[in-house]
Amino acid sequence: MNENTLATLGEIESLRRTVARLKPGDFALVGSGDDAAVVVAKDSFLVSTDTLVENHDFRLDWSTGFDLGFKAVASNLADIAAMGAKPTVLVVAVVVPRDTQISWLESFADGLQAACDQLSPGVAVVGGDLAAGEQVVVSVTAHGSLEGLQPVLRSGAKPGDVVAVCGPLGKAACGLALLESGNQDLIRSYDDWVEAQLRPTPPIDQGVIANQAGATAMLDVSDGLVRDLGRIASSSNVTIEIDRQQLSGYEAMLDLPAQSLAATTLTWVLQGGEDHSLLATFPANATLPRSFKAIGKVVSKAEHGVVLDGNSISDSGWDSITGSKS
Amino acid sequence: MNENTLATLGEIESLRRTVARLKPGDFALVGSGDDAAVVVAKDSFLVSTDTLVENHDFRLDWSTGFDLGFKAVASNLADIAAMGAKPTVLVVAVVVPRDTQISWLESFADGLQAACDQLSPGVAVVGGDLAAGEQVVVSVTAHGSLEGLQPVLRSGAKPGDVVAVCGPLGKAACGLALLESGNQDLIRSYDDWVEAQLRPTPPIDQGVIANQAGATAMLDVSDGLVRDLGRIASSSNVTIEIDRQQLSGYEAMLDLPAQSLAATTLTWVLQGGEDHSLLATFPANATLPRSFKAIGKVVSKAEHGVVLDGNSISDSGWDSITGSKS
Repeated sequence: MNENTLATLGEIESLRRTVARLKPGDFALVGSGDDAAVVVAKDSFLVSTDTLVENHDFRLDWSTGFDLGFKAVASNLADIAAMGAKPTVLVVAVVVPRDTQISWLESFADGLQAACDQLSPGVAVVGGDLAAGEQVVVSVTAHGSLEGLQPVLRSGAKPGDVVAVCGPLGKAACGLALLESGNQDLIRSYDDWVEAQLRPTPPIDQGVIANQAGATAMLDVSDGLVRDLGRIASSSNVTIEIDRQQLSGYEAMLDLPAQSLAATTLTWVLQGGEDHSLLATFPANATLPRSFKAIGKVVSKAEHGVVLDGNSISDSGWDSITGSKS
Repeated sequence: MNENTLATLGEIESLRRTVARLKPGDFALVGSGDDAAVVVAKDSFLVSTDTLVENHDFRLDWSTGFDLGFKAVASNLADIAAMGAKPTVLVVAVVVPRDTQISWLESFADGLQAACDQLSPGVAVVGGDLAAGEQVVVSVTAHGSLEGLQPVLRSGAKPGDVVAVCGPLGKAACGLALLESGNQDLIRSYDDWVEAQLRPTPPIDQGVIANQAGATAMLDVSDGLVRDLGRIASSSNVTIEIDRQQLSGYEAMLDLPAQSLAATTLTWVLQGGEDHSLLATFPANATLPRSFKAIGKVVSKAEHGVVLDGNSISDSGWDSITGSKS
């Protein structure tokens, strides 16, 4: 028996089967099925959008539908957490070829739901769109609530602040290198690193906690530590000094796969994207949340935006258009 | 001199030039440039998403970048208006090939802004994402405010209600037929109809007005009058009776191009999508807003969902996955 595809089922039935796998969540007054969803809010809401494109941001031979749904939600929830806020609802637009099997789309929906349940229980997909196209494109728009707090911007870092990270650095890049190696034995042996690439689990609940602890600036590490530190440095008009020794724990986590691949752990730690860990600055006298680890400090603006052990490091990271390190 | 493309400029500079063409609007406390935007809200907000895919929903030899930006905003604002609400902010994710000229993207941004200014002044794009891919995909997420009113759902139509329309019916489909004819003389002669397809101007401000006038159900006509009436009939568990005579004004507006194309005006009026006109039901004793025209009435659920002059008409319209009338 041939499996049903989107073309054989049509839009309405494909959408019905997909939406049926999603839970309503805690924040929608009116959920999917009408022209728009209605979502509770108090004074304000946060909104952020991020898109994943086949063969640019993911490969279908590496990612299952479940993986892709999970990752799309995880990376978008991280943007809300990075504002010091609590995620509430998502809308998801997905473009797929007409010959896509319905089971792929159902698995994708399961991945969306699993990421909500695991990373921020109560968050739900409250609307979406399903369209046909030549390649898979997933565009998620995430929303959040400040819970009475002020948003943590990129521009608030002050000289004297401590720079700290919550979550891994370079782990997703290491997973990508393992996948790119094509070595199935290594991919199986280091499944924890590969999973960090395919289904990242950023510490979503730590966004509000960092905000409550007095974070002065925050973002999630999407494009590599150095590039993202550079964004805080530039927005805040400061220089950020990183202490290599304080990166040693992140490097150590990558030692085994790095030896197998003859790779350099520091490159992954400094330039690896897609960890979606939270990167924040806190006043020197603040008590860091236990999940955050200090890696450096903020100083007055000097010649370079980001400095490692006294040496400037270039603004290296992933350019999503040119598809290269720049 | 070769013009700059996204590949030569890179993501950051391409995005900077695009965002520079957009105005901040009336509703963002924090606009684009951080991990998320912060938007004012009172008690609740509305959210809706819609995607346009190259060669499925538009053709780049028919639509300029400006047209595409305009249409993406217009169709999404219509979803908010159709809930009886006032649009506030948009986020826009756009996927384009790397060799896209920056001037195309700038023109696209101008189209986004022009649609906001023309259709719902004060509305703004407060966030977005730019990614590389094989075909152009535009995914807009629109937000709105109920202004203290209740949302107008699809499920509230009651027997005895009047069915009314605000905006054209079949005009965008007529424009599409003109473009498909490839006849440049006709396309130039009937530019008003072609514009209805390329840059629709739905009556966004009439959504709140219909809500205040007591609309019991509403949506925007995306997939054709019959199909969208069927959605109200099905959600509200009623039958809708349309009076052909009351469609004559809509048909008359299409007479000239229909004669030139040897086409049937009634087919466009009944099945043509993408007008994004507002289709609503009102209590029989309500005073219809002046912009709405009665076309039929709601009766108790009978054998068929939608009836024209006593004859059932099938649920015909556009299926965005199979790309065909169904």
